[in-house]
Amino acid sequence: MDSIKIFIPATVSNVTCGFDILGFPVEAPGDIMIFRKTEKKEIHIIRIKGADNLPYDADKNIAGVVSRKMLEEAGMPFGLEIEMEKGIKPGSGIGSSGASAAGTAVAVNNLLDSRFSKKELVPFAMLGEISASGTRHADNVAPAIYGGFILIRSYEPLDIIRLDYPGDLYCAIIHPMVEIRTKDARDILKKNLALKNAVKQWGNVAGLIAGLFRKDYDLIARSMEDVIAEPVRSLLIPGYDRLKKAALQAGALGCGISGSGPSVFALTRGEETARRVKQALSRAYKNTGINYHTYVSKIATDGVKILSDLNSV
Amino acid sequence: MDSIKIFIPATVSNVTCGFDILGFPVEAPGDIMIFRKTEKKEIHIIRIKGADNLPYDADKNIAGVVSRKMLEEAGMPFGLEIEMEKGIKPGSGIGSSGASAAGTAVAVNNLLDSRFSKKELVPFAMLGEISASGTRHADNVAPAIYGGFILIRSYEPLDIIRLDYPGDLYCAIIHPMVEIRTKDARDILKKNLALKNAVKQWGNVAGLIAGLFRKDYDLIARSMEDVIAEPVRSLLIPGYDRLKKAALQAGALGCGISGSGPSVFALTRGEETARRVKQALSRAYKNTGINYHTYVSKIATDGVKILSDLNSV
Repeated sequence: MDSIKIFIPATVSNVTCGFDILGFPVEAPGDIMIFRKTEKKEIHIIRIKGADNLPYDADKNIAGVVSRKMLEEAGMPFGLEIEMEKGIKPGSGIGSSGASAAGTAVAVNNLLDSRFSKKELVPFAMLGEISASGTRHADNVAPAIYGGFILIRSYEPLDIIRLDYPGDLYCAIIHPMVEIRTKDARDILKKNLALKNAVKQWGNVAGLIAGLFRKDYDLIARSMEDVIAEPVRSLLIPGYDRLKKAALQAGALGCGISGSGPSVFALTRGEETARRVKQALSRAYKNTGINYHTYVSKIATDGVKILSDLNSV
Repeated sequence: MDSIKIFIPATVSNVTCGFDILGFPVEAPGDIMIFRKTEKKEIHIIRIKGADNLPYDADKNIAGVVSRKMLEEAGMPFGLEIEMEKGIKPGSGIGSSGASAAGTAVAVNNLLDSRFSKKELVPFAMLGEISASGTRHADNVAPAIYGGFILIRSYEPLDIIRLDYPGDLYCAIIHPMVEIRTKDARDILKKNLALKNAVKQWGNVAGLIAGLFRKDYDLIARSMEDVIAEPVRSLLIPGYDRLKKAALQAGALGCGISGSGPSVFALTRGEETARRVKQALSRAYKNTGINYHTYVSKIATDGVKILSDLNSV
């Protein structure tokens, strides 16, 4: 295989109580990336569409950083030309940097004849997250690579669990067009928390996992509470309280910040409710002057999809 | 019904990563309690067997405190004579105070013709825990009342979930005969924790719940880690590291402090391994001069058991 074209889904991470440990991909939006082997052992980002401020310098671009590390570990058998079409806006909070990183890991591994296991791809992709936000988190890249509702039980050693969840779990997302850098959203978090709040959080995490396994929507709903990140991060999101109230009134099981924001997501039982929630989220932003995008999707069972090997392109 | 005799099981709470939110009862040891209605509307503790330092004063005795509150809410229709036979030593860390509290709540409710729901009994029993340790925790009383592997998802409002778990999950317990007061074990805990440790803890909680639902013993084993309480509380338990190492070497899935200690518990797959772990725990304490008790039990599906209504006694 000399070239590959892939689709990488956006991902919702944290999922209220599951800070740094839970995430899932959606069916849309997503990025498209194309990777072509080159004889010259250099990495070149030759096209970036849909994002203005991403670097073409391969040492600074996430796709460049991740692919260089993988190629180096593989003995640099070839170079790469990379094209990226960002359907997921940088700074949206639905895994934009994670998508570039996860997509690169999957694509380059394919060009390397699947030399690495799926699990080995996650640390490569996490390198991209470090270069983007300075923190080593997997709650976007692992769901983007694996698909499904993903638990990162542990980072050292890395332990990724694909959770059971109800098949009719849908997600509505609103992306307010204000940019929050992951690094800023991380900096606003307190480095310490009160034990009593931690107990609340892991009680809810336990409830959410139990609810997902048991398909107990009431329990899922009761457990979707975040006492750690939401109280501070929501301050960075214009009209957050209004959005959340609108989503819950429209029948969402729960609503929270996607990743580090500004996107806000809601989980619902079924597609119809998700569409209703999407409309409610839109209405809540009417007359605010803030532009936004909305999305509705099932929780995607697939992660990165290979669209073609491009030999015919 | 004029009188009732009950058995109340010991309970393992916290269960490593599940600080304040997880617990389960065992089949033995346990307490026996007898409650007799009296015409005189007073509460008298008339016999305490198996524990030297428990107060006979009904305003200080847990059974007195819990039963008084329940009878008062019911309009004080009768008084009580209470006998208690403590098979669970006070200060053992396997729910001694919780057993007195939970047993009282269930027994008095029976004498009140089940006026209260099972869920309503938990706050009554928690009053007993407050009187014993100064903190309002339910991770012993709820398992003792409900039976099974219990999650207290939330304290306010109280939300108790009976988790799925593998039927062949066994428990080995060693109770070193050194007394640790719950209050002291609580005081040694830091009131704040680092976010990165909290993330580890709720990753493990999520993994443990997923492992229990999926009957995935490896996942259960990997998740049984406590980075919050064990590092400090284990210092109060003589030879803790040696016990834990012995349990794991003998095949335990995981090992940790039961409640606030000093009892140490291990979970195993199957009874045979549990017996082997029990022997390993005993051997680890040989020649230390510390007396101890050991127990092996299935995770009990039942909580408090009514032995008889005693009308014949």
